[in-house]
Amino acid sequence: MKVNLTKFKSLSSVRQLTREKWAFGATIFGGKMIGLGLVVLAMMILPGLIGTSAHAAATPPKPTDIETSMMNSIDTVWTLVAAFLVFAMQAGFVMLEAGFARKRETVNVLMECIFDTCLCGILFYAIGYAFMFSSGNGFIGLHWFFLQGTPDLYPGTGVPVIAHWIFQYAFADTCSTVVSGAMIGRTGFRGDILYSIGITGFIYPIIGHWAWGPDGFLATMGTAGHFFTSLGQGFRDFAGSTVVHTIGGMASLAGAIVLGPRIGRIFARDGGGMPPGHNLPMAAVGGFILWFGWYGFNPGSTLSAMDIQGIGRVATNTTLAACGGGMMAMFAALWWGETKGKFDLGFTVNGFLAGLVAITCPCYWVSPLGATILGGVAGFVVFGGVKLLEYLRIDDPIGAVPVHGFAGIWGTLSLGLFATGEYGITGPYGADNTAPNLVKGLFYGGDASVLKAQAIGTFTIAIAVFVVTWVMMKLIMFLPHPWKLRVEEKGETGTGGLDMFDHGTDAYPIQDDDVSLSGLFEKGPKVTA
Amino acid sequence: MKVNLTKFKSLSSVRQLTREKWAFGATIFGGKMIGLGLVVLAMMILPGLIGTSAHAAATPPKPTDIETSMMNSIDTVWTLVAAFLVFAMQAGFVMLEAGFARKRETVNVLMECIFDTCLCGILFYAIGYAFMFSSGNGFIGLHWFFLQGTPDLYPGTGVPVIAHWIFQYAFADTCSTVVSGAMIGRTGFRGDILYSIGITGFIYPIIGHWAWGPDGFLATMGTAGHFFTSLGQGFRDFAGSTVVHTIGGMASLAGAIVLGPRIGRIFARDGGGMPPGHNLPMAAVGGFILWFGWYGFNPGSTLSAMDIQGIGRVATNTTLAACGGGMMAMFAALWWGETKGKFDLGFTVNGFLAGLVAITCPCYWVSPLGATILGGVAGFVVFGGVKLLEYLRIDDPIGAVPVHGFAGIWGTLSLGLFATGEYGITGPYGADNTAPNLVKGLFYGGDASVLKAQAIGTFTIAIAVFVVTWVMMKLIMFLPHPWKLRVEEKGETGTGGLDMFDHGTDAYPIQDDDVSLSGLFEKGPKVTA
Amino acid sequence: MKVNLTKFKSLSSVRQLTREKWAFGATIFGGKMIGLGLVVLAMMILPGLIGTSAHAAATPPKPTDIETSMMNSIDTVWTLVAAFLVFAMQAGFVMLEAGFARKRETVNVLMECIFDTCLCGILFYAIGYAFMFSSGNGFIGLHWFFLQGTPDLYPGTGVPVIAHWIFQYAFADTCSTVVSGAMIGRTGFRGDILYSIGITGFIYPIIGHWAWGPDGFLATMGTAGHFFTSLGQGFRDFAGSTVVHTIGGMASLAGAIVLGPRIGRIFARDGGGMPPGHNLPMAAVGGFILWFGWYGFNPGSTLSAMDIQGIGRVATNTTLAACGGGMMAMFAALWWGETKGKFDLGFTVNGFLAGLVAITCPCYWVSPLGATILGGVAGFVVFGGVKLLEYLRIDDPIGAVPVHGFAGIWGTLSLGLFATGEYGITGPYGADNTAPNLVKGLFYGGDASVLKAQAIGTFTIAIAVFVVTWVMMKLIMFLPHPWKLRVEEKGETGTGGLDMFDHGTDAYPIQDDDVSLSGLFEKGPKVTA
Repeated sequence: MKVNLTKFKSLSSVRQLTREKWAFGATIFGGKMIGLGLVVLAMMILPGLIGTSAHAAATPPKPTDIETSMMNSIDTVWTLVAAFLVFAMQAGFVMLEAGFARKRETVNVLMECIFDTCLCGILFYAIGYAFMFSSGNGFIGLHWFFLQGTPDLYPGTGVPVIAHWIFQYAFADTCSTVVSGAMIGRTGFRGDILYSIGITGFIYPIIGHWAWGPDGFLATMGTAGHFFTSLGQGFRDFAGSTVVHTIGGMASLAGAIVLGPRIGRIFARDGGGMPPGHNLPMAAVGGFILWFGWYGFNPGSTLSAMDIQGIGRVATNTTLAACGGGMMAMFAALWWGETKGKFDLGFTVNGFLAGLVAITCPCYWVSPLGATILGGVAGFVVFGGVKLLEYLRIDDPIGAVPVHGFAGIWGTLSLGLFATGEYGITGPYGADNTAPNLVKGLFYGGDASVLKAQAIGTFTIAIAVFVVTWVMMKLIMFLPHPWKLRVEEKGETGTGGLDMFDHGTDAYPIQDDDVSLSGLFEKGPKVTA
Repeated sequence: MKVNLTKFKSLSSVRQLTREKWAFGATIFGGKMIGLGLVVLAMMILPGLIGTSAHAAATPPKPTDIETSMMNSIDTVWTLVAAFLVFAMQAGFVMLEAGFARKRETVNVLMECIFDTCLCGILFYAIGYAFMFSSGNGFIGLHWFFLQGTPDLYPGTGVPVIAHWIFQYAFADTCSTVVSGAMIGRTGFRGDILYSIGITGFIYPIIGHWAWGPDGFLATMGTAGHFFTSLGQGFRDFAGSTVVHTIGGMASLAGAIVLGPRIGRIFARDGGGMPPGHNLPMAAVGGFILWFGWYGFNPGSTLSAMDIQGIGRVATNTTLAACGGGMMAMFAALWWGETKGKFDLGFTVNGFLAGLVAITCPCYWVSPLGATILGGVAGFVVFGGVKLLEYLRIDDPIGAVPVHGFAGIWGTLSLGLFATGEYGITGPYGADNTAPNLVKGLFYGGDASVLKAQAIGTFTIAIAVFVVTWVMMKLIMFLPHPWKLRVEEKGETGTGGLDMFDHGTDAYPIQDDDVSLSGLFEKGPKVTA
Repeated sequence: MKVNLTKFKSLSSVRQLTREKWAFGATIFGGKMIGLGLVVLAMMILPGLIGTSAHAAATPPKPTDIETSMMNSIDTVWTLVAAFLVFAMQAGFVMLEAGFARKRETVNVLMECIFDTCLCGILFYAIGYAFMFSSGNGFIGLHWFFLQGTPDLYPGTGVPVIAHWIFQYAFADTCSTVVSGAMIGRTGFRGDILYSIGITGFIYPIIGHWAWGPDGFLATMGTAGHFFTSLGQGFRDFAGSTVVHTIGGMASLAGAIVLGPRIGRIFARDGGGMPPGHNLPMAAVGGFILWFGWYGFNPGSTLSAMDIQGIGRVATNTTLAACGGGMMAMFAALWWGETKGKFDLGFTVNGFLAGLVAITCPCYWVSPLGATILGGVAGFVVFGGVKLLEYLRIDDPIGAVPVHGFAGIWGTLSLGLFATGEYGITGPYGADNTAPNLVKGLFYGGDASVLKAQAIGTFTIAIAVFVVTWVMMKLIMFLPHPWKLRVEEKGETGTGGLDMFDHGTDAYPIQDDDVSLSGLFEKGPKVTA
């Protein structure tokens, strides 16, 4: 498998340049082959899409071999540690989702997260990484299946492909886990297996390629010979507000709509409300672990620790956006929520998560002040988003759609407003903050081109993901039980709920001496058999 | 904003030298402006306090530009990863505090930790970092508000200011979270907001400046032209036994005293005892996560990974002190505790935490044997401290005062006993263990000067924090409900306790099918509305 | 204490070469001095065992002093961060074990993990590290007690001894914690203290020395002048499938057999089954945290980040093996388990853990495809192992024996099948993948020598550990209460179980208003005294 290395350039430029023409039209796809079909179709109707890289990299220093080797080591240590932190987010997700779920669907949540993590590893190794990060055309990568034929280093970085893989795997797994959030409580486990194959193996990597692939049409947008050359701006998504979170959030939304609400779920406008989660301490701790893991997610996305100002700035911006989001969502719920006058835990946790999601795209290019403000706005976005879904009678038990979908879109757009114009491209041996690479938003005196590019990118991806996932979910809904997306009614309503139905156990199995816990009477010794 | 860079020297010297004269006198401060008032007062009555740095740094190697750049990257990776680990301690704190809390105050604990983390980020960005780490005078830093006007690297280190910020933010957040511990269960949430602003925005950073600021009067103590020149020793607190933990612990103590005990709390001498926590597994896991995060706290405080012996030594000493503390506290409770003959979980966890707190100051300068012993003593300190508070009828639900306050003081003093005399100053390009920098304690043949300097530093800070915080807490106690520090009586005694009163929910909301858990009868399907 | 440095060579060769002759015979040892007795005996009956190192290291590059210093820093940062991640596994273990335990033995599980962690630190500092990693003879290390007399860097690495210590401490602690798993629920706490001293202070480090000591007889096997020269292969265990996990698993097995099952435990063939754990969310989160920590365990075992391809490959292989193991165990239980047709959480978690255990030995030398497959096989191994123990009426509440013991053996053997022949030795300044160092397994055209060496190594260690631990456990069983290994009957059967008996508390102490939780009636305000 031959790889056209000339298509690669420095990582950040991958996420910033636009080199291909593209015209968006309504397309209908179906089933698991949706992504592939899309590509084949696109290749047939859009000849000559694939251009060559014309990006002139900033003159790098001339290090010796041993110095290059050391810098690559520094970058690789950074990337791998970041990958591990991103992986730690799985512990956070599972706690957050399980804690905000009802007790009867808790084991199901746990198993989905674990299974998706396993499945994602194998699919991302076999096909996902190839679709997303190898070269091919504007719509899909076509090399490196099963990590065969890869170069030593991921092009434009100092990081081995095999280390870049695990970093990106952890991202893919995050996206995959988000999806299960809005679908908690009524998805059959076999249905989960089917849609997870679609999301993890095809939808995420192929649509992700558009923005992060070396020749993705959104990445190369605005450059000579590519889509929308006159815009002069590519789509930028530093660490994935759109690529990871909006994809996850929009897929969640499609799933939640296709599934319908859980049996017995009554919405606010009908006199009900979200059923309470069963374990708030678990959810809150999960939120903190997610925040912790985000320090891998965002700062690690430089793939370089030689850019010390960059990684410090990203880490600090990430922090402040989370702080702003948590605080604003808390006040929104305090002032306008159903529990007006109370300091609401659920909104506060979802608020700082929304701040984190929002800063994920612009974290490299904005100032700490900008990060605080745009994170704070994300806190309001998540508050409004939860209300909107409730009004639309869409059942999203953990708020995956507002937190990841809506805040992801907001964060992606916010770059067009808050980019300070001081920062350009990160790279393996340092940052390149020279003039042609700088990114400047409206609030800092820039023109609207960055905002336009961001809007094109995030809405293109959001709509594509929603449509494709909706079709896929619908198809799985047509399957007979037990493969049908929605579990049988007795799986939801039976004693022990989904946990007992699909997994044969309660989350907190009855212990032999549980009755003594009720405080009603004392029991003598009795032992479990 | 112009920064006087000549005031800076290598980070460790910041924590070791004494350059200013100072005379301690009783001063009364009040309210939220206490810190600032203190400074203004001090500046008026103590003219000529601010001297110039006369510290001659050890001759550094002469690296090339690219080598310097690489070393800075190594140091920055180290510092940032450490910062992330310190942040992870928030997950640990929230588990520890919630687990040792009663069920009825659990959500309150969660929300306080989350809110304080958000608030601390914004305040530490706006003013805290400036007060603490910029130059100014012996009492307060006066530059860098909102991180404006900062140099590229934090002076004397290879770490960007923007990366140093997040490391120090995580420290400030730790201090802030400690404070809530002793005040669990009867503090109104609005009162928490108020006092947190005081602690996070003013008390911690301003008093912290005394020890860690580039020109803090305790840092420069003992040097020519500064406070107590004849002592010849500055106050040393490598990673914050005093600066972080004693400040947190003493502020906790002031809060607990001002608040009084929880309603219905009966003390040991009155025939009662500490009400049991509600979730020991959560508390124990939280303890382990704290221990994990401490590996960022202490080793990261070198701000340098070029000093490989230093970071290894600090990591190992940290481990052994924790081991000693856990073991000794377990045996203390086994031999002398209320549950004599039992292996007590709470004391054991608090014991290893006390060991960690104690080693935080001396970790760079002591031997593994010294670390084991001083950590073990900390285990006894925490056991005695808990007994003392119980005797004094002070209600500290998680032992924040003994663990952070008392063990912090002990650890700070222990440097004067256990410093081996082999180690001096860490620095961005390696350690400087030459003669004038060495630190030697009494047990290793040193004179009492180090112990004196440590005593001056830790007691000055402990007393100042206690007094200032006591005044602040008293003032908040005078406010009307709901801003009053102590929550209304019904907030404590009502159904659902503080959680329901201030947050509108239980920690473990009743699930529709909870009764089946009692094992008393089976229920048919019924679904939450 | 003089150290014979010529006995050292590069770390990996330590784990790969064989240089001593050795004949295995039946030996009976006893009590806590077993390990030492073994050595003394062996030294008496096997004169001339100790040879000299003849290993020629690959020509290293010639870096300048400052470059060497930087590379050492990079390696040390990597090793320390990895050590911290491995330590984080303690949080995972305690959650996994407590979650899968019955409620009545939960505090006991927590306390054992905490106590063992503390004890292990002190013993590994005093004697363990010396026994294991210093030179001596083929059976035991004889220097560096209390870390005295050590060189600056651990020989053959760029990592200070004091940093290597904490990395290896975290490994020792892992092994120690595994042992408690199979013995949950009926071990007296004083008995736990006694056997933990034996495991942590003697059995693990001394037997570990055989494989990882600089002159261990399994490490030097196959080289001139040492045991089994004609084999031409040493025993390789990159990160400890055998050294850490099989030792832990086999010691567990011996303990479980000596103890017998918990009172009232009825096995499957007798119409019963494993009593359910009490908190599956906690167990599942613990599993994820263990997976996270494994990224320190395996990639960190290079002790070098200059080998960037190596650390990336190890991280990716570790991931894929876990994915394979989790998925296969899930399907095994789905198709053939007692809960046939259900997606079983316990097996899935134990499955990915088994995959992680299995890849721990071969992670450096296999391909991603090989890792996926051998991890998948481990998923079946753990399924079959659980069935086997149940059939044999051995009570292993968390599956420690199948997960760590059996999967560890499988993983160790699998190197002889899956090693690709492309990779050789890692080292502080990069990998050495030249011809004489390459490792090739049967499936890749190698001969059976690697498989033989692996079989000799893993079975020698498994048998030795089992025999020695069995004798030790038996001796502790002869002690009178309360020092007897097995707790008094009332400790198991009394109200509150082992937790109340040995620790004086429930894991979830009854809260004053717990009865309101039952949903049966509402209560007015009442406060805990």
